[in-house]
Amino acid sequence: MKEIPKKSKAAVLVEYGKPLQIREYPIPEVEPRGILVKVEMAGICGSDIHQWHGRAVMNAPLPNIPGHETIGRIVKLGEGRTHDAAGEPLSIGDRIIWPHVDCGECYWCKITRQPTMCAKRTLYAFRCCDDYPYLMGGFAEYEYLIPKTEVVKVPDELTEEEAIGVGCAFRTAVAAYERLGGIGIQDDVVIQGAGPIGLYSLLLAVEGGARKTIVVGAPQARLDLARRWGAHHVINIDEILDPTQRRDQILDLTNGRGPDVVVEGSGVPAAFSEGLEMVRKGGRYLIIGQTTQLTIPIKPSTIMNKGLDVIGSASASIPHFYKALQFIRTKRAKYPFADVVTNKYSLERANEALANMEAGKEIKPVIDNRGR
Amino acid sequence: MKEIPKKSKAAVLVEYGKPLQIREYPIPEVEPRGILVKVEMAGICGSDIHQWHGRAVMNAPLPNIPGHETIGRIVKLGEGRTHDAAGEPLSIGDRIIWPHVDCGECYWCKITRQPTMCAKRTLYAFRCCDDYPYLMGGFAEYEYLIPKTEVVKVPDELTEEEAIGVGCAFRTAVAAYERLGGIGIQDDVVIQGAGPIGLYSLLLAVEGGARKTIVVGAPQARLDLARRWGAHHVINIDEILDPTQRRDQILDLTNGRGPDVVVEGSGVPAAFSEGLEMVRKGGRYLIIGQTTQLTIPIKPSTIMNKGLDVIGSASASIPHFYKALQFIRTKRAKYPFADVVTNKYSLERANEALANMEAGKEIKPVIDNRGR
Amino acid sequence: MKEIPKKSKAAVLVEYGKPLQIREYPIPEVEPRGILVKVEMAGICGSDIHQWHGRAVMNAPLPNIPGHETIGRIVKLGEGRTHDAAGEPLSIGDRIIWPHVDCGECYWCKITRQPTMCAKRTLYAFRCCDDYPYLMGGFAEYEYLIPKTEVVKVPDELTEEEAIGVGCAFRTAVAAYERLGGIGIQDDVVIQGAGPIGLYSLLLAVEGGARKTIVVGAPQARLDLARRWGAHHVINIDEILDPTQRRDQILDLTNGRGPDVVVEGSGVPAAFSEGLEMVRKGGRYLIIGQTTQLTIPIKPSTIMNKGLDVIGSASASIPHFYKALQFIRTKRAKYPFADVVTNKYSLERANEALANMEAGKEIKPVIDNRGR
Amino acid sequence: MKEIPKKSKAAVLVEYGKPLQIREYPIPEVEPRGILVKVEMAGICGSDIHQWHGRAVMNAPLPNIPGHETIGRIVKLGEGRTHDAAGEPLSIGDRIIWPHVDCGECYWCKITRQPTMCAKRTLYAFRCCDDYPYLMGGFAEYEYLIPKTEVVKVPDELTEEEAIGVGCAFRTAVAAYERLGGIGIQDDVVIQGAGPIGLYSLLLAVEGGARKTIVVGAPQARLDLARRWGAHHVINIDEILDPTQRRDQILDLTNGRGPDVVVEGSGVPAAFSEGLEMVRKGGRYLIIGQTTQLTIPIKPSTIMNKGLDVIGSASASIPHFYKALQFIRTKRAKYPFADVVTNKYSLERANEALANMEAGKEIKPVIDNRGR
Repeated sequence: MKEIPKKSKAAVLVEYGKPLQIREYPIPEVEPRGILVKVEMAGICGSDIHQWHGRAVMNAPLPNIPGHETIGRIVKLGEGRTHDAAGEPLSIGDRIIWPHVDCGECYWCKITRQPTMCAKRTLYAFRCCDDYPYLMGGFAEYEYLIPKTEVVKVPDELTEEEAIGVGCAFRTAVAAYERLGGIGIQDDVVIQGAGPIGLYSLLLAVEGGARKTIVVGAPQARLDLARRWGAHHVINIDEILDPTQRRDQILDLTNGRGPDVVVEGSGVPAAFSEGLEMVRKGGRYLIIGQTTQLTIPIKPSTIMNKGLDVIGSASASIPHFYKALQFIRTKRAKYPFADVVTNKYSLERANEALANMEAGKEIKPVIDNRGR
Repeated sequence: MKEIPKKSKAAVLVEYGKPLQIREYPIPEVEPRGILVKVEMAGICGSDIHQWHGRAVMNAPLPNIPGHETIGRIVKLGEGRTHDAAGEPLSIGDRIIWPHVDCGECYWCKITRQPTMCAKRTLYAFRCCDDYPYLMGGFAEYEYLIPKTEVVKVPDELTEEEAIGVGCAFRTAVAAYERLGGIGIQDDVVIQGAGPIGLYSLLLAVEGGARKTIVVGAPQARLDLARRWGAHHVINIDEILDPTQRRDQILDLTNGRGPDVVVEGSGVPAAFSEGLEMVRKGGRYLIIGQTTQLTIPIKPSTIMNKGLDVIGSASASIPHFYKALQFIRTKRAKYPFADVVTNKYSLERANEALANMEAGKEIKPVIDNRGR
Repeated sequence: MKEIPKKSKAAVLVEYGKPLQIREYPIPEVEPRGILVKVEMAGICGSDIHQWHGRAVMNAPLPNIPGHETIGRIVKLGEGRTHDAAGEPLSIGDRIIWPHVDCGECYWCKITRQPTMCAKRTLYAFRCCDDYPYLMGGFAEYEYLIPKTEVVKVPDELTEEEAIGVGCAFRTAVAAYERLGGIGIQDDVVIQGAGPIGLYSLLLAVEGGARKTIVVGAPQARLDLARRWGAHHVINIDEILDPTQRRDQILDLTNGRGPDVVVEGSGVPAAFSEGLEMVRKGGRYLIIGQTTQLTIPIKPSTIMNKGLDVIGSASASIPHFYKALQFIRTKRAKYPFADVVTNKYSLERANEALANMEAGKEIKPVIDNRGR
Repeated sequence: MKEIPKKSKAAVLVEYGKPLQIREYPIPEVEPRGILVKVEMAGICGSDIHQWHGRAVMNAPLPNIPGHETIGRIVKLGEGRTHDAAGEPLSIGDRIIWPHVDCGECYWCKITRQPTMCAKRTLYAFRCCDDYPYLMGGFAEYEYLIPKTEVVKVPDELTEEEAIGVGCAFRTAVAAYERLGGIGIQDDVVIQGAGPIGLYSLLLAVEGGARKTIVVGAPQARLDLARRWGAHHVINIDEILDPTQRRDQILDLTNGRGPDVVVEGSGVPAAFSEGLEMVRKGGRYLIIGQTTQLTIPIKPSTIMNKGLDVIGSASASIPHFYKALQFIRTKRAKYPFADVVTNKYSLERANEALANMEAGKEIKPVIDNRGR
């Protein structure tokens, strides 16, 4: 392994809506239990586009280094950091992945044991990078993991393309699926949205025992991947514009009763009212894609009269990262996991990656530092 | 017991918005497993007012005999009907209570085992009373229970005033509480609405292990009963008109975090958005009072970002009637259950009862046939 | 379809331990909602051997017609019987399958809603066949289904060999899996026993999201089928006789922690203590194969100190039949379901089938009436 | 507050079965996040007797300072230790209570999120007290809490007598009750054992919605307290020696069906087989009192054929301490919590306390340091 430099380049969001700038930041000393990684690959998430334009639910302070779904290769291990969260030994050169950092002290961390609800989470990529320790985002050559960060090793046999989705969409889907309590034997499942969250939710439904899976989304390239990942049916919302027509099609596919489970992974508020109308009486509805603050009119009586369970889930914790990686490891012969990565960009071309993502040309583009 | 007459008087809804008329209908022959009861008491429910004006979610065909929460005294038992649902023997003279009738044949009855979602329920009080067997509503001297009806005996020690709420609001609250999975040890619970559904939900929270119970509703008489039934705090919405102020008060009472559980029992769509804002992150929200078809704008992202469980529940089945009766039987020394009945009217004064209910002068008025 | 004869042949258990005798019984009139079927195939279950020798937990009265897992073809439909439990229309010539008959009246049927615990179930194959309606077992040309029997159609595309296991082992596994609450994402699962219950449990684990499945059983032919049905590992108890050695092997396969879930489907009491030792701390243990009354010494402290969930499940209801059939219908391209049937015998050779089953030469032998 | 001395007296177990000796140990420096407390009260647990005689499941190394259920008053707070687990500020003089210390690193702490199953817990009172930091047991004047220890404040209005049971028996019952998923509305509950674990389990059943609670135990003084804590029935096992007779009595009290829930809190292995026979078909059985390694013969088929959930639970985590304290705080006007403390001894009389406990003369004796 190369010598560790004094500074790291990073693609920095300096002003909302303006191109990221390549800047250099000092690489910090590694504290006990801290970790320094060389970034191997940093995924670009739909929410990065909102963040770029300053219209996210929670805007990061400026300037900051985006990139919250990152695979890093360990270059320095702080004292006392010997194993990953699953008990595997950690060494220089191992590839790892990590969640945001729960405070471990608040009511949600201590008493209700719902750490994703932590009142004081430290979020990677949502930090001012002029402040120590500077390098806490993935759009960089190096990234620093603070001592409280939980990490899990990426199994050796996995490529970065296969594993990168674990950093955000897949672990979110895994955590949500656990909140749901899993899919019942032979449940019919509709997934709203064909982006990474929708696609990974599809996989969990297919492998979790669904009878029929139906993905409702666009564009066609995403739906094509959905088919390769096991979807029994896809409905292209660019072609079938009328929600009532979509619902009728879904009712036809589900014996006239509607799906047992609907997973909202679309990010569109209107999907919620569409899903409430579509799910069968007595069914379950998982909400995991709503990243905006927009409102939508709904009938609360529908939730009551249909006897629904509507379950919200956001973010995830280290067990979900671990399980997502295990899932890929055991199913990689079966599904082309790497196909979620539609393009690779150098750090210097980060703006191009964001632009193509925004233009709908990508499923998941990545910053690829592997040659670096 | 008196001889059974050939005909029964009933207060009949002939035209929406017009006074009920006293009419007479033939008392039908009792089929095998059917039951004929003398109506002892028939409760008046908030939904009866909507029904009266023809603005209910589901309007009954005209003419019909209202009254879906009824205590009847058995006057004739059809062949083969020997025991109630809990295995107690049935005899002439026993008082009983009963739910709507599930078809027992549909996908929800047979496969998903969610009988309250039954696709073809036969609903008491929602039948044209010109059609055989005529007497399927409680606003009458006699009522006929069809063979498939499940029934449970009212324990001898209970008065009709204590038990009448079981027929609708209390069994609804019991079924909902089971869907919720109960109250956690020392959960803080807010109940929206101080009508019968809110009040019985309060009792279940108090007796189910809540730390703090807060009832939000009006008018004061209902809140006073809520206090007698164990509410730790009440908030009068006629006095505190601003939802934000109510929410602040609730946050003050719940360590700034909001309640662990909110139960919507108000019937007002706006309560849903108020509840979503109020419930703590990671909390649970039970929707059981929404009887209108009205819409309300909400942020779906709130359900997701707070990681909520939103659980809808409507109606109930025979186990919930049984458990509600057992609850009253075992707690009657502790709570003045009869106080829910604020007035008793003769069958001939049914219109007066409806008018006073509509005017907000009552919690639960009843048609009292006991002297008859 | 041929004309319905007046009498049906049946293989009858007249005396425990003696060969079944071929006798003839009158075919009864079909009551409203009753059904007469021509038996197409009748499976032989391990418990039939215990029954044959009069050493079952619950011995049937003599004489009786064995056969509780049967596929019948409808030859006569009683009045009012128009649809199956899933709402599909029923016609003469359809193949159906059915569970034992819950009383629908007892505390478990009505109040706790646990119909498999019904206090007064009518069990097919556990009836004296000298009593009307005589033909209530599968080892016969015709079988009569009483009016309360719930039935579900066998999908047209399924062969009898594929579907026959639904009648007992598979529906049992489905019901148990629901009691368990499903397999967690990437759980490691050990199945004790490689007979039909073990094999179908394996399928549910594989298709329900297990990481690793390990089947512990014998003889090799069953383990070979387990491999074809997706088992990742098999342990032959005829080769590894020492439970400690088996446990060590399983610990090696499960990161030294033991499996997250153990399913007991072996029928051997000693498997219970072996499983308690093997399951990981905080794991779950499903007990579904214990058909004897024998005792075994265990340490109750193991259940406590390991923080286990030990879940018993017996028999099943109509939804589980339906889901098992749907499972086969949707996965038949993937698994050789028919391989569970290792031999087919004519009704006249029923004794040979029992003898070969007892000798351990079969997985599931069947009485095959299809040519008849 | 007095000046902190250099040394603390402790009652030390030097040799199994021999009297504890009063020794002095150095009071250690308080590390960051460590806490030094003056012991106010230390409870004596049934397991201390086993420990004393060296026959516990897990024997502590010698010499050690017993006492794992302790209320301490803060005399020194390590740097960075500002709030308790519920977010309440901590100050010198506050009374606190604390669980054993999870490693926070193992598979159970990180991945399965079952911290009571932690592979490397640091247990108070199970440490050689010749090793730094010496004072990790409650039978002492001072006790030292290591930095990872989670603590919760004892509410000001509670006396030590009211709160002392939280340190072991009550938090165990709270954790177990959560594993059980609570008591269903109007469930009948039998508690086996009338020691502290049985008594606190009783309280949770009474306040959690049970219809009938029946405590089976001895001696009479404990059963008398059970009555004061709300038991509807008690069965004295010193008077009714035959388990069959006890079972019959319980069946009589539970409509012939048996209790919906049985809680084993007796510590006696034979209670397990008695409980399996007693619980109703389809019921639940919680195992929380089994502190020995002894075996007992049972029929695994009973678990299966009755369709039981048998749930083991051991120890607890900080949320359960918090909830137990909140429970006492909100119900102290209703129950004489302090009555569980049957005697108070000075540190110097610790041997007398142990002897009386062993002789069955006590429910919970305590070491009372408050005057010191």
